[in-house]
Amino acid sequence: MTQSATSALGRHRWAIAEGYIPAWSNGPEPELQSHETCCILNTSTTDAQVSLTLYFEDRPPQGPYRFTVPAERTCHKRFNDLQDPAPVPRGIGFSCVIDSDVPVVVQHTRLDSRQAENSIMTTIAYPL
Amino acid sequence: MTQSATSALGRHRWAIAEGYIPAWSNGPEPELQSHETCCILNTSTTDAQVSLTLYFEDRPPQGPYRFTVPAERTCHKRFNDLQDPAPVPRGIGFSCVIDSDVPVVVQHTRLDSRQAENSIMTTIAYPL
Amino acid sequence: MTQSATSALGRHRWAIAEGYIPAWSNGPEPELQSHETCCILNTSTTDAQVSLTLYFEDRPPQGPYRFTVPAERTCHKRFNDLQDPAPVPRGIGFSCVIDSDVPVVVQHTRLDSRQAENSIMTTIAYPL
Amino acid sequence: MTQSATSALGRHRWAIAEGYIPAWSNGPEPELQSHETCCILNTSTTDAQVSLTLYFEDRPPQGPYRFTVPAERTCHKRFNDLQDPAPVPRGIGFSCVIDSDVPVVVQHTRLDSRQAENSIMTTIAYPL
Repeated sequence: MTQSATSALGRHRWAIAEGYIPAWSNGPEPELQSHETCCILNTSTTDAQVSLTLYFEDRPPQGPYRFTVPAERTCHKRFNDLQDPAPVPRGIGFSCVIDSDVPVVVQHTRLDSRQAENSIMTTIAYPL
Repeated sequence: MTQSATSALGRHRWAIAEGYIPAWSNGPEPELQSHETCCILNTSTTDAQVSLTLYFEDRPPQGPYRFTVPAERTCHKRFNDLQDPAPVPRGIGFSCVIDSDVPVVVQHTRLDSRQAENSIMTTIAYPL
Repeated sequence: MTQSATSALGRHRWAIAEGYIPAWSNGPEPELQSHETCCILNTSTTDAQVSLTLYFEDRPPQGPYRFTVPAERTCHKRFNDLQDPAPVPRGIGFSCVIDSDVPVVVQHTRLDSRQAENSIMTTIAYPL
Repeated sequence: MTQSATSALGRHRWAIAEGYIPAWSNGPEPELQSHETCCILNTSTTDAQVSLTLYFEDRPPQGPYRFTVPAERTCHKRFNDLQDPAPVPRGIGFSCVIDSDVPVVVQHTRLDSRQAENSIMTTIAYPL
């Protein structure tokens, strides 16, 4: 690895305006379970303390969901797996703000397997 | 929710250059109806007055479509549902400019179920 | 349409690093023909003179492909339809630089119908 | 090609936070093999020396993977094909930092053919 790649890269805060965990699935799990993922890259040599806040259409914001992305590691966090302070409801729209104490890079991905063949989509999150 | 996450985040104006509501669908509605969505996140403590203007290939711009995204809420607005001043024609290309009186974050998503298995795509909108 | 939405928005130059026209298709044409599209929004009150330059893996750049995006219109241009100075080869990778004499917003979309069910993807282009 | 399009465009460093090579495939290869691609456009008149560093969830960073993107060419590099210093494991999440000695533009694409019908996704990478 080049020396330069080990420094902290990215931003402290990101937003994902689209969020939705499809309510059902087809195919072998966990790979093809319908899921919504927040991919967080921490290139720094310091562990990143990350906190997610979820926004909904019909209820107050929910969070923070806290976890650590270790130094020089990535984390592909499924919203499906978030439990504390509450699970993420299926089949309703939400948005997400990601806060990190060290700069990170964030990308959003969904796999939708509600029909027999899965479909995927991704976008870079919005850096704030 | 962290205190910092409640402030206004994003931009006042965004653009989505791609727009197209597929003209037919397969699968249970409303989930799997072909649709085009504009996801708008308002993290501020003030309601956002939003206005959409649509651009077409062969006719003058259409709008404004006005609606509110409440404080600390998201809105996943389907272009399929816009009615005033006129519905959005199916099966033709369009683009969209989104204006908001408070900063918001915007993401664009399509679900295309014209064939038996649905397909999805998404991108962050372009901040202006 | 709001007065503010009629001004020129965006950038004069954009890039799309991914490009590929799948070599075959399934389903009714033109809707479900495999295609690669460059969506260009011109919100200004002046016609935009646009020029595309294509880059390949194994041959010199090809172009310019010139066309007009009228004032206050969008153009969803399929790379499949480009003919002058030469058609775009199918089934090989390319990239594209978009130049416009007035600011525009550009988004990239592909529909791949090589298998029985189509798949779609999109991203905002990169503003230069 | 316009004179202006031949200059160096883009950035020296990019990140892709999402990475995953699906572990199996359906359909004719190489077109429909499940793959993850990093598309790199070099518009400059100088060859670009590119180096990729991969980040994982459970092990140290891996790289650099070095290759050249010739002047005025694009390169659609499949992560599947990276071999030196080590192949990229299938079916696990990763992220990627791309370094180039001349400015380039980078876009990320996946084709997932684990089920009978393929699915595609793309996003512009994050410029650093």
